Order: sequence, then structure tokens, then C-alpha cells
Amino acid sequence: MAEPATATQAAAPAVPQLKDELDIVIPTIRNLDFLEMWRPFFQPYHLIIVQDGDPSKTIKVPDGFDYELYNRNDINRILGPKASCISFKDSACRCFGYMVSKRKYIFTIDDDCFVAKDPSGKAINALEQHIKNLLSPSTPFFFNTLYDPFRDGADFVRGYPFSLREGVPTAVSHGLWLNIPDYDAPTQLVKPLERNTRFVDAVLTIPKGTLFPMCGMNLAFDRELIGPAMYFGLMGDGQPIGRYDDMWAGWCTKVICDHLGLGVKTGLPYIYHSKASNPFVNLRKEYKGIFWQEEIIPFFQQTVLPKDCTTVQKCYIELAKQVKENLSKVDPYFDKLAEAMVTWIEAWDELNPTGSSVTNGKAK
Amino acid sequence: MAEPATATQAAAPAVPQLKDELDIVIPTIRNLDFLEMWRPFFQPYHLIIVQDGDPSKTIKVPDGFDYELYNRNDINRILGPKASCISFKDSACRCFGYMVSKRKYIFTIDDDCFVAKDPSGKAINALEQHIKNLLSPSTPFFFNTLYDPFRDGADFVRGYPFSLREGVPTAVSHGLWLNIPDYDAPTQLVKPLERNTRFVDAVLTIPKGTLFPMCGMNLAFDRELIGPAMYFGLMGDGQPIGRYDDMWAGWCTKVICDHLGLGVKTGLPYIYHSKASNPFVNLRKEYKGIFWQEEIIPFFQQTVLPKDCTTVQKCYIELAKQVKENLSKVDPYFDKLAEAMVTWIEAWDELNPTGSSVTNGKAK
Repeated sequence: MAEPATATQAAAPAVPQLKDELDIVIPTIRNLDFLEMWRPFFQPYHLIIVQDGDPSKTIKVPDGFDYELYNRNDINRILGPKASCISFKDSACRCFGYMVSKRKYIFTIDDDCFVAKDPSGKAINALEQHIKNLLSPSTPFFFNTLYDPFRDGADFVRGYPFSLREGVPTAVSHGLWLNIPDYDAPTQLVKPLERNTRFVDAVLTIPKGTLFPMCGMNLAFDRELIGPAMYFGLMGDGQPIGRYDDMWAGWCTKVICDHLGLGVKTGLPYIYHSKASNPFVNLRKEYKGIFWQEEIIPFFQQTVLPKDCTTVQKCYIELAKQVKENLSKVDPYFDKLAEAMVTWIEAWDELNPTGSSVTNGKAK
Repeated sequence: MAEPATATQAAAPAVPQLKDELDIVIPTIRNLDFLEMWRPFFQPYHLIIVQDGDPSKTIKVPDGFDYELYNRNDINRILGPKASCISFKDSACRCFGYMVSKRKYIFTIDDDCFVAKDPSGKAINALEQHIKNLLSPSTPFFFNTLYDPFRDGADFVRGYPFSLREGVPTAVSHGLWLNIPDYDAPTQLVKPLERNTRFVDAVLTIPKGTLFPMCGMNLAFDRELIGPAMYFGLMGDGQPIGRYDDMWAGWCTKVICDHLGLGVKTGLPYIYHSKASNPFVNLRKEYKGIFWQEEIIPFFQQTVLPKDCTTVQKCYIELAKQVKENLSKVDPYFDKLAEAMVTWIEAWDELNPTGSSVTNGKAK
């Protein structure tokens, strides 16, 4: 586990699952050489590349990949004034890719993430595991001590209520990272040499009512079930904060999943995170978030959505309203963010008119 | 992992931790030959053996162990009429051992549990891991995606609120089982050959507000923090139900831990569970529980304890009251159980007068 995997070809499945129902979204500012390593796993799928930063720069994509690429000019052209809700100079721009996708499932990954190895040395097909997680139910209402009861060789343990064993649809699959752990700047500074070498062979449902820090590095979700909640906020250029894009999306998503009876899983698959970002730069981006989150998290923990919020969009608009009411006092930034949340939903609905984002025959 | 460990001697620590502060409680009806395997790990500790069934039978304990043994005659003599709250012909009788202990910590294990091996083949010192779990804080208010942040090589991930990183005291450490999983009778019948071979290298806090199925086979707890909630109910002889003793204790304990701000951990350590119990016998014991739990669990999920319940005893008496009010309609058994819960607390307080159960210099 100390090194990324090399022999990935052998681990590729003969039939790639959900090939026509899943998009891989990659935010980037550089040539996508990292895709070479992922080729056996990703090549059958369609990629949506969101180019951040200077739009005049050319991003090279290795031959043989099927992709569409959007730079800032494209985003401005497609969304017009609503493009203001999409961050610039921050990987938060990836959520534009979720919006323009026409597929049911999204897998998003950072371009510094390589293929990890399991303890036996086998290359881990992260996408395949995410698909397994998304296609099997979640169990948010009661904890199963043997973890995901739907995995091979596992089940519900004694004392698990039978009425809850059907589970609920899984909306989100949150994967983890070997090598460089996803630490905040203070922890990076204090533990510069810490590496994650522990392979935990588990997938579990995050219980209802419990928030978690969702990392966007290695993440999959069901766009039809939860897509409009996966807004990565206002970060980067012109904003007072960075590195909270995925956290924001995670808090909103979890509250809405809990309200709508959807599941969020975390655990497998691991990717190999190759490079620690600069902790000094990170500290500058994060420091406001570090104290703001002390008020944001209690806010989300107390949030109750009214019963008439029966769609993700309705939930999200309601959440924007509550953010404005409750967090604007923390900083005027949240006023702006609340407005961007509404713009995001408007843009989403414009690009995804009701009934159109159907890939498997079921109405949204 | 397919076999229990044999070379346990090499895995024993030079200095056994908490030697004078922890009792090992074992309920049994047979000679304790299984202790031979645990000798390197358990011999430094004091054992409390609760002999179930015929008190005239002699239980042989291997030489060299320091123990006290209680049979039914002893329980009747010590508790008098209050002995009615201790189950007979059911391993629920183990909770008598919790009551007579004078130590701060309890580890309880079944006599069909052997030493498991980790994936490297090393014998697992289950007790040592439980002690680690109990001596490090829990994090019930927010989920940490890299599991227990207090383990070596782990920490809190980005986005984890700093104000919550101190954690809360850990009251319970729930260990797992390789080989025979802890399944209910219907699952045993449907999957007679299923074995648990997955070693999940994780410890995690069960979030606040989430119930779990607590198994009594491999369990440790802090008696001073939560002891009086660890009542294993009325099971076995003369009762309409069995195999819900630990579940009952788990539901009560978790609700009270949540109320008092204490933590419950699950995961490591594994023991090797050697023998599946008879699923037909289990079905007879369990079947009422299988439908009762469909009402019991919503009851515990909705339970709110008043603010003036500031001790475990007060919480437990309040819980007994609510059980009587809410569950008696399910079956008259719960009336009897609610009364036994009160008797249990009376007996506990009699054997543990305030201020006397002190082992580490701090008042209870």
C-alpha cells in the first residue's frame, strides 16, 4: 500500500457496469496524464472534464478516452449570468460537470489520485466498488455491526429489526484515500509525515441524523436521486474561503438525504492520493472555514426541512432560505452563498427540464 | 482467519494494563477449558465466574487463574428476594458479575470464544484492544471518515470541527467475531454455512442518536460510567424469551450514553467464535423478540430522558417507568421486566453504596 498500483489492466472487468449511465467528472488545470493509470477502468466510460483557470490553455487528454471538456468560456456561454454560481480557480467548479451531465450516475475524482492496491497487492477498481455501493441499499436507521449487510459474506446481525432490512436507496458513495490523508492545514502542519496505510475493508451507511466531512476527491452519487444538492458552493477566485466546497455539499446533501430517506455510504473504495497540497496555501484558504464551521455544523445539525419539501430542489431552496436567515450573521459571505444556491437550482432546472434527465426509463 | 490462533504466548504484553482495575466476567455451565487458550492474556486479571444452571455441579477452572465463582445459591443468598431480577438458565445471568465486581472496568466473554488471528497470523489480544478503546475518547457528535481518530496513524479529517476533537469518555467497547457470525435464528437457518472471514481493521464510535445490536459475547465497559445500565433483563427459565438479554442492555445503554454524553465504540477486537448455537432452539427462544423488537426499537428511538436524570441510576429508573407505560401493551412481560429493572437498580445500589465503588481515587 506504500505505492500506487501498476498492473491495473489485469483488474479490469470484462463488462464495465453502467457504461451508458455514468459520467466521470474531473476538474483540472493540467494535462490528464493520470488517466493512463486508470485507463483499464475508465476508458469504457464517458468523461466530463471541467477545465479550471485560464481557458486559453490546452488540456491534453490521453488518446482513446471519450470526453467532453468545458472551460470557463464554455461555462459562461452555457449559463450566461447564472455562471456566477460556478466557482473559478477552485476545484469546486467540478459541480458544473454534474449539471451538464445527462446520465444517472456521477463519479468524480481528482487528477492527483492514482490507483491504490488492496492488501493482497491487487489494483483497486474504485469505480467498480462505487457502483456496487450505489446499486445496493443503505441502512441509515439502525447500525449493523458487521458493516454493509449487502456485501458478500455479510448480513444483518442478530437484533437487527426485520422491517428495516430492505434498506433505502443509496444516493452517495464516499470513497477514501491511502497515502496522503485528507487533513486540514493545521493537521498537515503538525503531522507532515503522516500517511494513511490502514486498509479498512468496510463499507458502511452513515446513520440518519449524523453529519460527516464529505471529501470530493473520490466520490460517486446518483444524480437523479440527489444531484441538485451536490452544489460545491462559492470558493476560490473572489471568495473569502476555499477547501470547503465538498464539505458544504456534504452537509447539504446529508441533511437532504436524511429528510428524503436516502442513504449515504462511506468506506471502500480507496484511491492512492499522491501529493499533499501545500499546507501554508491551504491554511490561507481554510482559516475562515475553520471557525465558521463551528457555527455551520450546529446549524445543519438543527436544520429541519418541512414536509412539503418532497424533491431535492425544494429541499435545497428551503435550505438556501435557512442559510440566509441563520448564517448571514456569521459573515455576509453566507448571504451571497444563499443566493448562489438559488441560482444553482435555477441553472440546474434550466439544463435539466423535468423528465429529460432519464437514462433508465424511470421518470425522475 | 479460518482457524483460531494457537501461539498466543508470544502476543502477550509484558505489563498487563489495568490489572487491578478490571474484572473479566464469564457466564458458564461447563468447565472453563477455553481459558487455556486465553491464559497469556487473562491470567494476570481477576475473573468473576457466574455459574448458570444446576448449582450442585462443579465447574473446573484451569490452575493458576485468580477467580471468584458464584452459582445460583450464592446469587440467592447475596441478593435475597432481589435475586428475582437475575435470569436463570440463560447467559443473561452474567450481569450479576457486573454487580458484585468492585472494579472500574468489566470485560465479558462467552466460553465458546477463542483467540482470533489478525491477517498477519498474529494472535489478537482482545482484552488489550478493549482497554485501548475504553481509555481513548469517543466521537459521537460527528462522523470521522478515517474511523477512530485516536488510533495510531489516524486523526480527524479535514472538515471535522475542532471544538469536537476532544471527544467524550468512552463507556462501552463492543468487539466482533470471526468465524461464526452473531446471526439470528432465521438467518442461521437460511445461511447455515456462512462464516465471517472479513477482518475489518477499524474501531468507530456509534453516532449519537443511533441504536445498534449490542452482542454480549465480546464486550467491555466502564462500570463507573455505565455499569447500572448493563442489566441483561429477564431471560431463560420461566420467561417467554431468550437471546435478547444483550440487545436489551444495548438499547438501554445506548439511550443513556447518548443522554449523558458518553461514547460507545464498535469494531476491533475480534474473537474467534467457535460454535454456532442450534438455530431451532434459538428460534424458539427468539421468535417473540423478533416481532416485539419491531415495537421496542421505535420506542427506544423516541425515548427522551428528562434533564434531571443526571446519573445512570436515575436514567435507568426513568427508562423502567417509560417501558412500563409504553411497552406493557405489547406484552405483560414488559410489566414484569420494568419491575425487574427497578429491582436491579435497588440491588446494584445495595452492593455498590455511593462512594464505595472507587478504584482509581476518583469518587463515583
